[in-house]
Amino acid sequence: MIDEIVGAPVFVKCEPLQVTGSFKIRGAVNRISRLTADERKNGVVAFSSGNHAQGVARAALIEGIKARIVMPYDTPKVKIEGVKRDGAEIIYYDRATEDREAISARIAEQEGCVIVPSYDDKYIIAGQGTCGLEITEQYPLETPPQAVVCCIGGGGLIAGVSLAIRANWPGTRIYGSEPVGYDSTGQSIRAGHRLGVDTSAKSICDALMSPMPGEMTFAINSQNLSGGVAISDEEALATMKLVFTTLKVVVEPGGAAALAALIHGKLPIEKGQPVVAILTGGNVDPDRFKQALDLSV
Amino acid sequence: MIDEIVGAPVFVKCEPLQVTGSFKIRGAVNRISRLTADERKNGVVAFSSGNHAQGVARAALIEGIKARIVMPYDTPKVKIEGVKRDGAEIIYYDRATEDREAISARIAEQEGCVIVPSYDDKYIIAGQGTCGLEITEQYPLETPPQAVVCCIGGGGLIAGVSLAIRANWPGTRIYGSEPVGYDSTGQSIRAGHRLGVDTSAKSICDALMSPMPGEMTFAINSQNLSGGVAISDEEALATMKLVFTTLKVVVEPGGAAALAALIHGKLPIEKGQPVVAILTGGNVDPDRFKQALDLSV
Repeated sequence: MIDEIVGAPVFVKCEPLQVTGSFKIRGAVNRISRLTADERKNGVVAFSSGNHAQGVARAALIEGIKARIVMPYDTPKVKIEGVKRDGAEIIYYDRATEDREAISARIAEQEGCVIVPSYDDKYIIAGQGTCGLEITEQYPLETPPQAVVCCIGGGGLIAGVSLAIRANWPGTRIYGSEPVGYDSTGQSIRAGHRLGVDTSAKSICDALMSPMPGEMTFAINSQNLSGGVAISDEEALATMKLVFTTLKVVVEPGGAAALAALIHGKLPIEKGQPVVAILTGGNVDPDRFKQALDLSV
Repeated sequence: MIDEIVGAPVFVKCEPLQVTGSFKIRGAVNRISRLTADERKNGVVAFSSGNHAQGVARAALIEGIKARIVMPYDTPKVKIEGVKRDGAEIIYYDRATEDREAISARIAEQEGCVIVPSYDDKYIIAGQGTCGLEITEQYPLETPPQAVVCCIGGGGLIAGVSLAIRANWPGTRIYGSEPVGYDSTGQSIRAGHRLGVDTSAKSICDALMSPMPGEMTFAINSQNLSGGVAISDEEALATMKLVFTTLKVVVEPGGAAALAALIHGKLPIEKGQPVVAILTGGNVDPDRFKQALDLSV
């Protein structure tokens, strides 16, 4: 049914099925496994709206080190519970008035621990890039797809994925999808330099509400991406319901952004030519999921 | 979290992710691919509460033959739509007053087409058994699990799976899980012969409401199963929500029955020893899924 709507064969990479329910475990494990013996003693700190938090908490649990997570008060409950279950300490902050980077930096200084950034880090980008490597390995057709579509928050996943795709499939285009109001990478690519967005804007794509592209991620994405589009809350919800009905996978609003862009015809896709979309996470509260199921589409 | 609740490592085989959203495509493809050139001309007829219907419709579409499906009026909409999309003809009947086998037999006679039974057929059982073969191939530990748990409707899946498990893992126990009121295989095993159930009983496990074990399936299951238990609607719903939260997979009530039996402590499981549960399907209407999400558990 998705193929019929898009008018092309759509292959989906399913990161909600990953450990911790999103791709974030990839980068977190890669970064934490590279701590020195000395760094391991005091553990790590990370700031995250949730999925990176869960990735870091689980990676720390696996590696047997301490993790502290700086999370906004309005984080979906399911993400908070995941972090708690893995034994990490949570420090809450107000998304509108406080600076999570400053809070993390203070904790890192006070406790002598290493910050695990959510995207602007070479180990994180390389770790997330394994998702792109797997796409090239698992793709079942002989000829590469015309395009790979991926959501963008800070841009770490699409940066890593784009490096993997460029290296293996040089003819494949890479598109980004962001929430309306938080399309900072799309805007920055069009402007030719990094732009911030007004972080008072609302979005249900909590995983993608980054104020600005990362320096390192933008350097990669501005080279590798063929474009970035923005999708609305309604388009994210409709895609969540479509994935429920057809793929039987639970996907969160931000995790549905890439497929939403395809489904809603926002990308210059050649009809009949295969395309890959990444579903990036499935950590969604029941009430939000019910909102998607209530749609008449 | 599932491991903690069960008190043992739980491995899950995820059939909602199969083509048509359940394991049923396995048996349907196996049966239809074995039609003679002559039989192919007039196509097939099948009776089903939905998942077998979708499997047969898709298998017929793949093989380029005509399919007719006899379905009860109260089939979940999502299953009816799946069958229609694959181009099969639907003949509706009343579950309480009409006999689907008789209707199918009449159609087969009138149109000269072959009946594809939903479970009591050697090709169907062998096809569903590929799920069991895959479990033995994909299982990541060296020592086989203590048990494999599978839901039972007519008993085709668990018959095929049990043959595969017996052949590869002779020391592994096989348990069945049925809805309360439709635990015909469990009752029949305890009685030593096939028993029918009162089909006026209600259950939300629409995929498992079989009136009686199959002759062929019971001959296998009475030999291979270590026991059968019954789960309630509430236990199915609670398991659907747990799978939503932890595995990010959409599972229908009947599809959750095996894991529900484990989660709710109905099986003689040795603590700490690995066990496999099969999630068998994910074709569930949004309203039913919302009922699961509304639970406070």
